[in-house]
Amino acid sequence: MRGLDDLKYDANGLIPAIIQDADTGDVLMMAYMNKTSLAESIRTGQTHFWSRSRQKYWKKGETSGHTQEIQEIFIDCDADTVLIRARQTGAACHEGYKSCFFRKYEPDSAEWNVCAERLVNPDDVYGRK
Amino acid sequence: MRGLDDLKYDANGLIPAIIQDADTGDVLMMAYMNKTSLAESIRTGQTHFWSRSRQKYWKKGETSGHTQEIQEIFIDCDADTVLIRARQTGAACHEGYKSCFFRKYEPDSAEWNVCAERLVNPDDVYGRK
Repeated sequence: MRGLDDLKYDANGLIPAIIQDADTGDVLMMAYMNKTSLAESIRTGQTHFWSRSRQKYWKKGETSGHTQEIQEIFIDCDADTVLIRARQTGAACHEGYKSCFFRKYEPDSAEWNVCAERLVNPDDVYGRK
Repeated sequence: MRGLDDLKYDANGLIPAIIQDADTGDVLMMAYMNKTSLAESIRTGQTHFWSRSRQKYWKKGETSGHTQEIQEIFIDCDADTVLIRARQTGAACHEGYKSCFFRKYEPDSAEWNVCAERLVNPDDVYGRK
């Protein structure tokens, strides 16, 4: 398999991209790329995505400075999911946590409880809304 | 946030679930769950998914015996992606690799090259097709 044309994009031209911390192995986030944003990620060495809610390209860290430096890119057996190992500057999550997966399921209470510490205050990074 | 009703399922009632090896941190696979298969995963402690191609429920390992014992379940900030840390018996990938992400992008050639060793022969696990 060669290049980006053989990957399986969905009906909207998107492919999910899992971002993993290259140093700790923590899963940081999942977001969507299209062929253009994946090509731009490869070209620049920094992750670029397609925002489904805003219908626009975004470079991770364009506002916050919390960029992701790509170390390795993998594709899965079905060629429909990308895995990127990257070095994360600051917080991957817009809520200020290192990883977006900061809530853990507690079977006894059926609650999703915060299980990580905030690295940064989102108001400081993105401005108060 | 409590229970499974507050999660954000897509228009087809699905939510992507990333499966991570609880021991090594390797990302093993990504597949889709709906509320019923997530509830069944929680109830049994083993991963259950919804197959988009076959339009049916499947328990990981139902044919191969390569089950996933759930250790921890996380939800992301947008409540639209699940991360499950699990102990994998055998190979997560139906092609016989431990992880489905066994092909790595080589920037110089733009090729996706196999970068892992097969653990098992799929013909031995699933029968020759």
